[in-house]
Amino acid sequence: MGKNIVEKILQEHIVEGELVKGSSVGIRIDRTLTQDSTGTMAYLQLEAMGIDKVKTKKSVAYIDHNMLQQGFENADDHKYIQTVANKFGIYFSKPGNGICHQVNLERFSVPGDTLLGSDSHTPTAGGVGMLAIGAGGLDVALAMAGEPYSIKVPKVIKVELTGKLCPMVASKDIILEVLRRETVKGGVGKIYEYGGEGVSSLSVPQRATITNMGAELGATTSIFPSDEKTREYFKAQGRLDDWRELKADDDAKYDEIIKIDLDALEPMVAAPHSPDNIVKCREVSDVKVDQVAIGSCTNSSYEDLMKVAKILKGRKVKNDVSLVIAPGSRQVMEMIARNGALADIIASGARILENSCGPCIGMGQSPGTDAVSVRTFNRNFFGRSGTNSAKVYISSPEVAAVTALTGYITDPRDIDFDIDFSDISTDEFMIDDSMIIVPADTSTEVEVVRGPNIKPFPLNTALEDKLSGKVIIKTGDNITTDHIMPSNAKLLPFRSNIPYLANFCFSTIDEEFSARSKDNPGGFIVGGDNYGQGSSREHAALAPLQLGIKGVIAKSFARIHKANLINSGIIPMEFENPEDYDLISQMDNIEIEGILEGIKNGKLVVTDKDRGVSFSVSVVFNEKEIEMLNAGGKLNSIKLKKGIGA
Amino acid sequence: MGKNIVEKILQEHIVEGELVKGSSVGIRIDRTLTQDSTGTMAYLQLEAMGIDKVKTKKSVAYIDHNMLQQGFENADDHKYIQTVANKFGIYFSKPGNGICHQVNLERFSVPGDTLLGSDSHTPTAGGVGMLAIGAGGLDVALAMAGEPYSIKVPKVIKVELTGKLCPMVASKDIILEVLRRETVKGGVGKIYEYGGEGVSSLSVPQRATITNMGAELGATTSIFPSDEKTREYFKAQGRLDDWRELKADDDAKYDEIIKIDLDALEPMVAAPHSPDNIVKCREVSDVKVDQVAIGSCTNSSYEDLMKVAKILKGRKVKNDVSLVIAPGSRQVMEMIARNGALADIIASGARILENSCGPCIGMGQSPGTDAVSVRTFNRNFFGRSGTNSAKVYISSPEVAAVTALTGYITDPRDIDFDIDFSDISTDEFMIDDSMIIVPADTSTEVEVVRGPNIKPFPLNTALEDKLSGKVIIKTGDNITTDHIMPSNAKLLPFRSNIPYLANFCFSTIDEEFSARSKDNPGGFIVGGDNYGQGSSREHAALAPLQLGIKGVIAKSFARIHKANLINSGIIPMEFENPEDYDLISQMDNIEIEGILEGIKNGKLVVTDKDRGVSFSVSVVFNEKEIEMLNAGGKLNSIKLKKGIGA
Repeated sequence: MGKNIVEKILQEHIVEGELVKGSSVGIRIDRTLTQDSTGTMAYLQLEAMGIDKVKTKKSVAYIDHNMLQQGFENADDHKYIQTVANKFGIYFSKPGNGICHQVNLERFSVPGDTLLGSDSHTPTAGGVGMLAIGAGGLDVALAMAGEPYSIKVPKVIKVELTGKLCPMVASKDIILEVLRRETVKGGVGKIYEYGGEGVSSLSVPQRATITNMGAELGATTSIFPSDEKTREYFKAQGRLDDWRELKADDDAKYDEIIKIDLDALEPMVAAPHSPDNIVKCREVSDVKVDQVAIGSCTNSSYEDLMKVAKILKGRKVKNDVSLVIAPGSRQVMEMIARNGALADIIASGARILENSCGPCIGMGQSPGTDAVSVRTFNRNFFGRSGTNSAKVYISSPEVAAVTALTGYITDPRDIDFDIDFSDISTDEFMIDDSMIIVPADTSTEVEVVRGPNIKPFPLNTALEDKLSGKVIIKTGDNITTDHIMPSNAKLLPFRSNIPYLANFCFSTIDEEFSARSKDNPGGFIVGGDNYGQGSSREHAALAPLQLGIKGVIAKSFARIHKANLINSGIIPMEFENPEDYDLISQMDNIEIEGILEGIKNGKLVVTDKDRGVSFSVSVVFNEKEIEMLNAGGKLNSIKLKKGIGA
Repeated sequence: MGKNIVEKILQEHIVEGELVKGSSVGIRIDRTLTQDSTGTMAYLQLEAMGIDKVKTKKSVAYIDHNMLQQGFENADDHKYIQTVANKFGIYFSKPGNGICHQVNLERFSVPGDTLLGSDSHTPTAGGVGMLAIGAGGLDVALAMAGEPYSIKVPKVIKVELTGKLCPMVASKDIILEVLRRETVKGGVGKIYEYGGEGVSSLSVPQRATITNMGAELGATTSIFPSDEKTREYFKAQGRLDDWRELKADDDAKYDEIIKIDLDALEPMVAAPHSPDNIVKCREVSDVKVDQVAIGSCTNSSYEDLMKVAKILKGRKVKNDVSLVIAPGSRQVMEMIARNGALADIIASGARILENSCGPCIGMGQSPGTDAVSVRTFNRNFFGRSGTNSAKVYISSPEVAAVTALTGYITDPRDIDFDIDFSDISTDEFMIDDSMIIVPADTSTEVEVVRGPNIKPFPLNTALEDKLSGKVIIKTGDNITTDHIMPSNAKLLPFRSNIPYLANFCFSTIDEEFSARSKDNPGGFIVGGDNYGQGSSREHAALAPLQLGIKGVIAKSFARIHKANLINSGIIPMEFENPEDYDLISQMDNIEIEGILEGIKNGKLVVTDKDRGVSFSVSVVFNEKEIEMLNAGGKLNSIKLKKGIGA
């Protein structure tokens, strides 16, 4: 029987279990990536595992999030990661070398290989046919230690592309269209595999924009075939040896097929405050814009920046608009600096930011009070820009650039000048890996430098059979990890310091959560649908752990966050009957008994003592997950197995 | 009798008093500049003055300090300044257009004119023969309102330059040599006028580096002649009409003459933690460096960046060094982007920051714990980098660039490659003023937008005849305004919010100062020599005012801070006998009687009630200053005069 691409890669990498839809399997991880805001935790965890060198084909540590350096903390983290990487045989991409996903695509992606990254946008590498999955730092640390990565065999959805994008319609509009149809929770438990004759018209950077923002679907990952276009990209990157062809068999089966006619797409934006809140540009052309931001792992490739430069060349940004642009990597930056495009961008009045995640992760460029910001990024969650009253729209670089010129959200087909993008692709990228530091051969001489902000990570205790405590917070649907553990310029520098960070858990929506948790130890969180969507940050589990949270009861969970909760020994529970959500109120006392047996049987009964009601929650875990929960988290469970000191 | 340049300009601008050494005169201010971190206060004060349009030839509002935008505050301040500038006939230089002093030099400096700027490095424009003085925001607001600026007729010190700089010795080394000889308090009450045959070999940007960092001498300002080199610069900037020749008469008299033989100078650095702590590079060549930062109003000209690019071209920054570079203006940035120099810089592994003050003002790029940072800036005060444990060295761009390559503080004459700087000057700058917004003709239609972080400034009350209170803090010598009101990335966004900012007054050296002040209202500060050196920020007076501080007793004061204290109605008092400083202890109760009469007679008696001792302090003020102190600050005094509501 024919196989799709996902099945082919899984088949090649499976080391535990069987490829049966919905069952858990362990797959071999070929490569890993970390960034700095999740990386310090991952490396602290790696250090606790008692190995000398990473066991992957190649692991790379990037610095791209915390680059503002408003205090000693960031530089200390960079130094810690650089030295620990050197010791454990990990390549280190210096600050200034670029955003992890962009640099990974350019220099380290390999079709058909598996990649696990401690960043939710790791699926970017799916643009070249890599099976690239985002995970919590601990899972990435385990992959570096040679452990298989455990996933439920996902459904594979084929996205069949036909036709060709019209001028000024971008690949960003393709993923916005998928989000419009599927919503931010539509992808849970699924992999989106792109195919159809429309694929061949899309360049690798265009494909990577799609797989990148596929993260917003809640999907396990997204993937494209590796074809002639992919080959051209690898050739232009001087890495033809890393290329291989990869395509679905003609008779491959899929769980579902979505068809998108590229000719029919129009320029769109995701309106505040969700990436699936899609409207056509022309429907919001009366929205006055204060800021435009171009960049992020979604749209900062050489191709994207060249398009932007073409639009801006010889024109001027509106007086009352601030346009900021952050190229995705040093390769992109140097190329546009060499060919004059950067000078054209500067001449238009744009502000040039460092090659980093920057404003996409709330590190700077927060809009003013009530301001409208149009961004080529991937998430417009409430508060993520650093300004709660700001209204953030997500768009393609084409929409963003013309909007900067007009001051209103503008469909780029409605401009009064002609733009020709036909000459922007390149058949030879500038290659210079000198900012990627090769690790030491022998680890023994390397001293790991730990600054005072780097604190030990919290560890849970073994699971108790009975839990009782208060509902510290009750949230609505689609709570993101940005809600749970905000990641703005003031907090991101403390990603290595959970005790401090925990003081700000849920602070965007509830400033008293942390204090209430401390006053009522052993509490619970109650959530709605799609609880924990968004970023892969395990801090959204570690901070509640630090605050003594024992369990989360929700209508449904986002994949990575659920795994992070289990890794932390916090029980994720799903309402069997979603309407039971309405029975509970914040600060109610709840009680759960018979837990040790219940998690084996997939079911627990929760009693709300204040309301005098009981209801069932689903707790379906595989064997490993049960082990973890019993031990009080994954690291405890591994230590038990390996006999590493308590 | 022949006149020096300073006398010529003062003579042309005097509107009150007589040009007698040491006496107070009022001079007409032709032009003003503000930056955003002092500008919001200045414009709030301007709004309180009841005028429609500024009365200067030209006033310009720049955004260059607060550009990280970690929250809504910065963008709100930008918007406030943009709209208030538009209303009052002030030109607005958008964020991204560059550092105020660099842009002013390029586009607005005029030989022979007077410039008052709410930034201590305003003397930069002295490089073209402008009499450019730094002042508190209120004084700049008054100058915009057409009021004369009051100064004591300063001593004029001639710095006579002979010979020519050797290769790799920079104009930065000239000002470091002046600082070595004169110290950070040597310039109080003085203007440094450069002359001698050595001047003609220095370009305008080289001269501007010297006048810029002359601020570190505590001088009123520094100035160069306007000669053929100046003419060439104006021609290359397309502003020949703004140029005029300006030189001292052959028989001009000076209060003192300092001679510097340029041939004898060597590359130097200012070692931690003072700009006058000068050592030769070769004496500290064993110092391992973690970070190198190039930029700031001192060294970010086209010429500086071209030198840096020449040194970095084809070479690589050391693996364990982070090199950050912020060009001084969009003009510089676009020119080096057009000619390939920026690409060479990027290729070396440097990180490119925005055209802004950036790390010089602590906005980002704080070094790691205990790290060594070599910076082309002007100040290496304790804590100013944002990292108290960091060791900051000040150097020329040449020293900084080669140090980034070697990883150790390096004399650029000791490198093993040849560099030729002969072709870097330009006879035509790229001119594009499109990021400088011309103000509206009619102010009535302009709405001034005020974000929620913009709070009213504090006002003092009329002076009382008797004051008694506690000594809230007793400091040592050379306390900077960075000590009094720290200006790091966490606090700079709150420059428009004095009530909040005041909580962090003196926090770098004494975290309890603010709380003690609140617990003991009506207190005093006791300082040593050169109290209040450094930045012009009036926040260093406004925060103590907010906290109820009534007077400062010090061995001596820096000029701008003393004026800011008087402007705020806080009495600056100088020990008649400096040894009396030893009599007082922190938290002693002191009492001063007969103040209203005493400040007219120049003398007060302070009684330390806990020690049972009394001593005299000098309080010599001119008539206007006495008026201000009596009224409870300058704005109260003006309101009284103009009959503007209480």
